[in-house]
Amino acid sequence: MTLSNYNVPSSQSYTIQTRLVIPPDTNHIDTIFGGQVLSFIDEIAAITAMRHSNSVVVTASIDSVNFVGSAKVGDILILQAFVASTGRTSMEVYVEVFSENLLKKEKKLTTTSILTMVAVDEDGKPCPVPGVIPETLMQQRLLETAPIRREQRKIQRENNQVN
Amino acid sequence: MTLSNYNVPSSQSYTIQTRLVIPPDTNHIDTIFGGQVLSFIDEIAAITAMRHSNSVVVTASIDSVNFVGSAKVGDILILQAFVASTGRTSMEVYVEVFSENLLKKEKKLTTTSILTMVAVDEDGKPCPVPGVIPETLMQQRLLETAPIRREQRKIQRENNQVN
Amino acid sequence: MTLSNYNVPSSQSYTIQTRLVIPPDTNHIDTIFGGQVLSFIDEIAAITAMRHSNSVVVTASIDSVNFVGSAKVGDILILQAFVASTGRTSMEVYVEVFSENLLKKEKKLTTTSILTMVAVDEDGKPCPVPGVIPETLMQQRLLETAPIRREQRKIQRENNQVN
Amino acid sequence: MTLSNYNVPSSQSYTIQTRLVIPPDTNHIDTIFGGQVLSFIDEIAAITAMRHSNSVVVTASIDSVNFVGSAKVGDILILQAFVASTGRTSMEVYVEVFSENLLKKEKKLTTTSILTMVAVDEDGKPCPVPGVIPETLMQQRLLETAPIRREQRKIQRENNQVN
Amino acid sequence: MTLSNYNVPSSQSYTIQTRLVIPPDTNHIDTIFGGQVLSFIDEIAAITAMRHSNSVVVTASIDSVNFVGSAKVGDILILQAFVASTGRTSMEVYVEVFSENLLKKEKKLTTTSILTMVAVDEDGKPCPVPGVIPETLMQQRLLETAPIRREQRKIQRENNQVN
Amino acid sequence: MTLSNYNVPSSQSYTIQTRLVIPPDTNHIDTIFGGQVLSFIDEIAAITAMRHSNSVVVTASIDSVNFVGSAKVGDILILQAFVASTGRTSMEVYVEVFSENLLKKEKKLTTTSILTMVAVDEDGKPCPVPGVIPETLMQQRLLETAPIRREQRKIQRENNQVN
Ligand SMILES: CC(C)(COP(=O)(O)OP(=O)(O)OC[C@H]1O[C@@H](n2cnc3c(N)ncnc32)[C@H](O)[C@@H]1OP(=O)(O)O)[C@@H](O)C(=O)NCCC(=O)NCCS
Ligand SMILES: CC(C)(COP(=O)(O)OP(=O)(O)OC[C@H]1O[C@@H](n2cnc3c(N)ncnc32)[C@H](O)[C@@H]1OP(=O)(O)O)[C@@H](O)C(=O)NCCC(=O)NCCS
Ligand SMILES: CC(C)(COP(=O)(O)OP(=O)(O)OC[C@H]1O[C@@H](n2cnc3c(N)ncnc32)[C@H](O)[C@@H]1OP(=O)(O)O)[C@@H](O)C(=O)NCCC(=O)NCCS
Ligand SMILES: CC(C)(COP(=O)(O)OP(=O)(O)OC[C@H]1O[C@@H](n2cnc3c(N)ncnc32)[C@H](O)[C@@H]1OP(=O)(O)O)[C@@H](O)C(=O)NCCC(=O)NCCS
Repeated sequence: MTLSNYNVPSSQSYTIQTRLVIPPDTNHIDTIFGGQVLSFIDEIAAITAMRHSNSVVVTASIDSVNFVGSAKVGDILILQAFVASTGRTSMEVYVEVFSENLLKKEKKLTTTSILTMVAVDEDGKPCPVPGVIPETLMQQRLLETAPIRREQRKIQRENNQVN
Repeated sequence: MTLSNYNVPSSQSYTIQTRLVIPPDTNHIDTIFGGQVLSFIDEIAAITAMRHSNSVVVTASIDSVNFVGSAKVGDILILQAFVASTGRTSMEVYVEVFSENLLKKEKKLTTTSILTMVAVDEDGKPCPVPGVIPETLMQQRLLETAPIRREQRKIQRENNQVN
Repeated sequence: MTLSNYNVPSSQSYTIQTRLVIPPDTNHIDTIFGGQVLSFIDEIAAITAMRHSNSVVVTASIDSVNFVGSAKVGDILILQAFVASTGRTSMEVYVEVFSENLLKKEKKLTTTSILTMVAVDEDGKPCPVPGVIPETLMQQRLLETAPIRREQRKIQRENNQVN
Repeated sequence: MTLSNYNVPSSQSYTIQTRLVIPPDTNHIDTIFGGQVLSFIDEIAAITAMRHSNSVVVTASIDSVNFVGSAKVGDILILQAFVASTGRTSMEVYVEVFSENLLKKEKKLTTTSILTMVAVDEDGKPCPVPGVIPETLMQQRLLETAPIRREQRKIQRENNQVN
Repeated sequence: MTLSNYNVPSSQSYTIQTRLVIPPDTNHIDTIFGGQVLSFIDEIAAITAMRHSNSVVVTASIDSVNFVGSAKVGDILILQAFVASTGRTSMEVYVEVFSENLLKKEKKLTTTSILTMVAVDEDGKPCPVPGVIPETLMQQRLLETAPIRREQRKIQRENNQVN
Repeated sequence: MTLSNYNVPSSQSYTIQTRLVIPPDTNHIDTIFGGQVLSFIDEIAAITAMRHSNSVVVTASIDSVNFVGSAKVGDILILQAFVASTGRTSMEVYVEVFSENLLKKEKKLTTTSILTMVAVDEDGKPCPVPGVIPETLMQQRLLETAPIRREQRKIQRENNQVN
């Protein structure tokens, strides 16, 4: 679906982020704010998409996010992200967030998330991106199912307009 | 669907937020980071849900978010939020984000978003919330369509698990 | 007292701000720093004056501020501001700050404050602003008493110079 | 006017603060926000009052502040503060703010300010503070004129209530 | 040299951090502050040492740091860290920092650094840590040369005391 | 060793910084992060070097830092810095950090540190700095021993390369 005449392996954009949860990130009951996690997710997605496209990027959308586990002060958040698929100017970035409690030695999934990032030039106009070559089974499956997600997003955007 | 024996009008939780977009919120091309907007959205949703339930809340999920317009340094972001519907312990919060460019005197929709916030006690255990009494036509429609969205979220969560 | 040949209603600049008091805003005994509240007051005054004048603004002065009530972690601060009167290049902005404790369901006045904001061009030189048309009784009274406050400020500034 | 049976010299609380003005502190035209300066003023006043009283303090009020000069990105702000006078539980802190432009080698007064800080115990209840022994001519004059400022503040507070 | 009766592989503590350099991290000429990089280095060293020891840690020292390359707004910083050696209660953490310029597609070493982190209990008292099992040639060499560095640090600390 | 044809006294660059340790600066056991202290050290060193050279500066290196004492929430950190010696374009800045516990009325040395800052022009190219005239015995001794430290740094840099 990409129009640029070269593709890059997903390992070029694969990015890891590790964060210590500190008091300013949290509420009264010492649980991290959802907005803080969303902000970490957006930052790693931007880095990932910049690495893939070698250009400035903006966030076009984020698919629905479920917070299945929380994180507390002193926990460590681990974020991992790669480009799952590409359009002409857009990139789908897949992000996984885990939280690690060191005393209890447990690592839990906090959330997974898919964002669409668009490469833009200095004037904020969309510009073409290379395609992606998947390197793991999961990356391959995500690339194959990309058209379905793309379709669902279009339907959802239209529904929202009716709203 | 709520089990608490009293309801509160949506005006109790209706919240407005106004923010000046400043350099640290933005990237190279002076456009606000999506993660910063998501973080503002989560903060106003938390305030709104706290006002409705008079308790501490956590973010359970955020429905897909589309950024249809951007905001630049010097623009003003206006966020408006209210409780759209309630479950036993959860609240659906509807958030609208506009950006205002003062020199061009134009106000654009940046995004709309729906979050599910859950009221929790000191141990992070979900606790009951009052129902909501809609006060505008839009609030009434959102309350009526809440079961559909709830259903869609359940389906989507199950799909994600298969993932 | 304004020299520009048009006036704008105070509703054009009327601004609401809602903030959750979080740990980094507070000291050992979980009370918000006065400087944090002053910083919120200055931000809303700047937004209000920018909306009135459609230009960049700087803070020329802030009248004396009394903190009659404090706010704690988990409280909500509500700030409301409008342009109370205008000079040639300056605007008087009136700001009210309330704090809301959700568990005790009480809302207290934290402080009221009047700031003078000056519209400036790119070089920081003062430039003319439109006049304001009051829309409530309180706004009308504040507009009528503006010359008295302006006089008092001048006296005080002169006293300070003697200092 | 102090009830504690000992006094401390003003040099015990004399405090200097030096800050580099960086982009996040400033607006579009690279001028520091008034709210940022107010926030620095409150921080140094708190440190000064803590040093004088060896206790936690809160800000009770700040007298009117005039910003006679601005500061830009890359300038240095120098704040100097000491306890000017004391009541039973309150301390008047005098703060001077200068900005230094290194390339132009000029140092300008940005503002002077007087704050009232109150010593509090763990429950936020006011507690007695020692008196202050002035050590310079300026400190002596400020101590002598303290009752006049105290009177003016009382009048102003009453006026505000009528408001 | 460790007294705890078990050892853990260095992969347990191996940590990667990826950061986008944004305007608030930088000075007038858009170059990242050294202090910001030092702060990132300390954060990753703390996470690494926490992962190795499953306890709270404090920074005892940082060996001399040379900034051989700088990073600009829009660059990406990549930090990699592992436990290089252990004492009874202390851990030597080795940190490498690279900066990546995406447009020029170049990746440069910014600095390498060695910190000593000490595991502490709730009262800040040092407590024992497991030993480390090196897994790469570089890790093995660093473990072997640890006693030399330890000796050098001791000499240097004594010299400083003479100072 | 300086090539510029004028020298300035060390009092021109002598800088004091006073900071209140607040919750966001600290970890679980309320102790300040080493990275936060390093960041304060770098900021005061930059201000000091800017004042000496009247130009923009970057951090070239920081000599090894030992944290001999910690600081807790509510403590005050006092930093003092001056230019110890100069090269053609570089300045050695000496920084002392004390922490003051107000309740216990004790002041402890936290660390001392020496940084090398380099004056740069708009393009980041090094540019000459004036020499320094020491004004205290300690400053004189530090100036005399500068060549030894300079030599040690060279050796250490070479060792690191072998690494
Ligand atoms: C994203 C944006 C650049 C798209 O601009 P546009 O004029 O709609 O451009 P196009 O129609 O050519 O779309 C460009 C690409 O974005 C995709 N896109 C646009 N809106 C999208 C959305 N809401 N969700 C997912 N993808 C979207 C298009 O499908 C297209 O992809 P393709 O080139 O791979 O086929 C524009 O909507 C924008 O600037 N939004 C704000 C982004 C932003 O600033 N976010 C941060 C917080 S507000
Ligand atoms: C949200 C949370 C408290 C739910 O806990 P749980 O054990 O699943 O509790 P329950 O099954 O009783 O669900 C409680 C309510 O949450 C709703 N809920 C749970 N997960 C949800 C999701 N992903 N999306 C929307 N609603 C959800 C349930 O439908 C239920 O609503 P109702 O009481 O109105 O019928 C729990 O998943 C959690 O703590 N998540 C992390 C929240 C967090 O910390 N977010 C910040 C960033 S990680
Ligand atoms: C405010 C400022 C622009 C005024 O500049 P100036 O050269 O004195 O300009 P003028 O004398 O023409 O005054 C312009 C207006 O400001 C008003 N003004 C100036 N100083 C004032 C003060 N301390 N309090 C209230 N109003 C003041 C004047 O009354 C005049 O109002 P008017 O045009 O409505 O009659 C200038 O003092 C300045 O830049 N100050 C620093 C502002 C700043 O950066 N603040 C942030 C933190 S430092
Ligand atoms: C680090 C600290 C806990 C050491 O405490 P102590 O009473 O000296 O304890 P010990 O003498 O038992 O030393 C404990 C370990 O730390 C090591 N250590 C102490 N000071 C050190 C230094 N400056 N550099 C490297 N290692 C050091 C010791 O060698 C010993 O290591 P080992 O157990 O592996 O043999 C103490 O100095 C401290 O709290 N410092 C402040 C730490 C801090 O808060 N840093 C953040 C910014 S201030």
